[in-house]
Amino acid sequence: MSLIVQKYGGTSVGDPDRIRNVARRVVETAAAGHQVVVCVSAMSGETNALVALADELGGERPDAREVDVLLATGEQKTIALLAMAIKRLGREARSFTGGQMGMRTDRDHTRARIQDIDTVALRAVLDGGGVAVIAGFQGVDADGNITTLGRGGSDTSAVAVACALQADVCEIYTDVDGVFTTDPNLVPAAHKLERVSYEEMLEMASLGAKVLQIRSVKFAMRYGVPIHVRSSFKPDEGTWVVREEEVMERLVVSGVTYNRNEAKVRIKGVKDQPGVAGRLFTPLSDAGIVVDMIVQNLSSDGSTDMTFTVPVAEHDRALDIANQVAGEIGAAGVESDEKIAKVSIVGLGMQDHAGVAARMFRVLADEGINIQLISTSEIKVSVVIEEKYTELAVRALHSAFVESGAQEPRAEA
Amino acid sequence: MSLIVQKYGGTSVGDPDRIRNVARRVVETAAAGHQVVVCVSAMSGETNALVALADELGGERPDAREVDVLLATGEQKTIALLAMAIKRLGREARSFTGGQMGMRTDRDHTRARIQDIDTVALRAVLDGGGVAVIAGFQGVDADGNITTLGRGGSDTSAVAVACALQADVCEIYTDVDGVFTTDPNLVPAAHKLERVSYEEMLEMASLGAKVLQIRSVKFAMRYGVPIHVRSSFKPDEGTWVVREEEVMERLVVSGVTYNRNEAKVRIKGVKDQPGVAGRLFTPLSDAGIVVDMIVQNLSSDGSTDMTFTVPVAEHDRALDIANQVAGEIGAAGVESDEKIAKVSIVGLGMQDHAGVAARMFRVLADEGINIQLISTSEIKVSVVIEEKYTELAVRALHSAFVESGAQEPRAEA
Repeated sequence: MSLIVQKYGGTSVGDPDRIRNVARRVVETAAAGHQVVVCVSAMSGETNALVALADELGGERPDAREVDVLLATGEQKTIALLAMAIKRLGREARSFTGGQMGMRTDRDHTRARIQDIDTVALRAVLDGGGVAVIAGFQGVDADGNITTLGRGGSDTSAVAVACALQADVCEIYTDVDGVFTTDPNLVPAAHKLERVSYEEMLEMASLGAKVLQIRSVKFAMRYGVPIHVRSSFKPDEGTWVVREEEVMERLVVSGVTYNRNEAKVRIKGVKDQPGVAGRLFTPLSDAGIVVDMIVQNLSSDGSTDMTFTVPVAEHDRALDIANQVAGEIGAAGVESDEKIAKVSIVGLGMQDHAGVAARMFRVLADEGINIQLISTSEIKVSVVIEEKYTELAVRALHSAFVESGAQEPRAEA
Repeated sequence: MSLIVQKYGGTSVGDPDRIRNVARRVVETAAAGHQVVVCVSAMSGETNALVALADELGGERPDAREVDVLLATGEQKTIALLAMAIKRLGREARSFTGGQMGMRTDRDHTRARIQDIDTVALRAVLDGGGVAVIAGFQGVDADGNITTLGRGGSDTSAVAVACALQADVCEIYTDVDGVFTTDPNLVPAAHKLERVSYEEMLEMASLGAKVLQIRSVKFAMRYGVPIHVRSSFKPDEGTWVVREEEVMERLVVSGVTYNRNEAKVRIKGVKDQPGVAGRLFTPLSDAGIVVDMIVQNLSSDGSTDMTFTVPVAEHDRALDIANQVAGEIGAAGVESDEKIAKVSIVGLGMQDHAGVAARMFRVLADEGINIQLISTSEIKVSVVIEEKYTELAVRALHSAFVESGAQEPRAEA
């Protein structure tokens, strides 16, 4: 007997028929002898409708505490409906709001962080043979105020509960078959990964493969709970996200990802002196702008160009701040570009081998693609290129690294 | 400075514009120096939509615990939206779910009874100058399960909180101007009552004047909290529901009510013997059928006819049970009639004076209306007549008792 946490997103519970499908799947799992916790999101469309109401009544900045009270109704609706549907199939079930399941968070409304989960009530239902149906995305603070976890909160709820219950697996049901080596819409040769490490998944998730929320992967990594990303609509196995040592198939590169939703801002001719970076990035951070890549190169004359990327939606605000700072520090000027794409290769295999980056640059050069920025981490190399070359770059890199099945250290490094 | 509890029903908060109107009214009351608790229902249509979902997913008898989890989202949505709207107008406000406001009930899901209200959290907000926005209709049991109070629960929540806080008044906002002497659609001469006693209101509410829920009136009567029934759309005073001794204007009859939604079932030729009534009404009660009037007349031959009324919707089921019992006890037969109306006169004044009933029967006889059943209480006389005479009977009785302004004991009694 295993303890399985299943998480179904908004699309999987989007209408009564789909909720019935989820109920059947849960009952089948329970009938196979497992203890089951099901974590659900709001029905698709529900959260957006509630946000629209909040904007209408609360104005530009609706009160955050009340936004959470409002949004929490979305998941509360789903847990009640799913618990009913499961009971109707003859299996005992009980719903839990964030408060009822002991999901304690800090007080940071609309983006609270989980502090603690008191699993006594959940355990009691599971030990009695029942299915626990829990609301994702929500919790309560120490005073009983309703909080929500922000974007991707339901994945995080599911994984956090799986960790707290020491579950055997946290299954994330989604509308894709698993985690792919790259976007199958761009590259027909893309294939599903059977296993991928937490570390690779983190890099892929943050780089734009929107299968799993990054916060939930961090949680699972910390507590060592396996995640199984799989299809709501098919019984097939999906992709297991596990510890590095459990990933058998050691490809040098596990995936190729891309992101077309960033813009690039460059401050030219910055005098190299201590504190310049802080003067730029402090006001950006204060403005709530999420900066992704930061690249700086010192030139021999002692001045430098400082380039960073931000979400396209933040481009104008970021540019304003950059212009102001550039004036203050006497830089030569500011440029920006929204027509860029970030393309990355991710793989545990590359951390042992120099030369993967070099090979990546050569593959792109062979296609005539100019590289504007480069940024690397232990298990990933990212480049920024002109947006119109995105597909070409992704296909060439997938072909060179993934389809070739490169598994050995390469001498050309 | 008064402490005022205001209750707004589903129509008054039915869309964002109306919620904004309620927010303005609340802020005006607070700005006048009063402490304000606002109790709200789900937006109109919301509860029905949720019930439809429950029926679809839960089947014929959706799990009652989960129905409550589901329905409670309706009011939770409204409190968040209203609290936002109030804050946007610059007045401090905080929403409270049933659990957060300490509304403790028994465990009887979908029709729970209030046991206790812990007002500490509400008091803290009021004492801090804020408006407390509370969810009507919902509470929690001793284990933190969400419960709902059943039909009319929001009125009951508002009055119960007013009692617990020893509020100066509980204002019930509605789409009518107050409590009328009879249905103004039937009788243009109907007028709004300025004051009416709890007892009269109870009889009028249960007889079909759908302004105030009967449970809430009982609560207010027990604790002596004045209720002010008034229009959501006009600033005018409505009707105060108060202690008998505070009702100045002592009309013999305060109102004429009618109900066309009942059916009559008669078991003929019942041998008069102990236990017959129990054999009939026990299975009706077990079947959840609400019996209103019960009339029995012993005839000289030792047999009797037993007649009762039920909601029209229950007619068929009640008839089946009556037929079965009639067979068992050897009655002569069963008849039923759905084309009936119950017409009643209600008034504190009549309890001192015999003759009011006699006058009522004479008024109806003068109009050629035959009386099928009669039932009386301390402050009301009800008759069942053929349905097609409803308007005629109501107009004649209103004219004879209310428009005449009869305030004195009458010699004709």
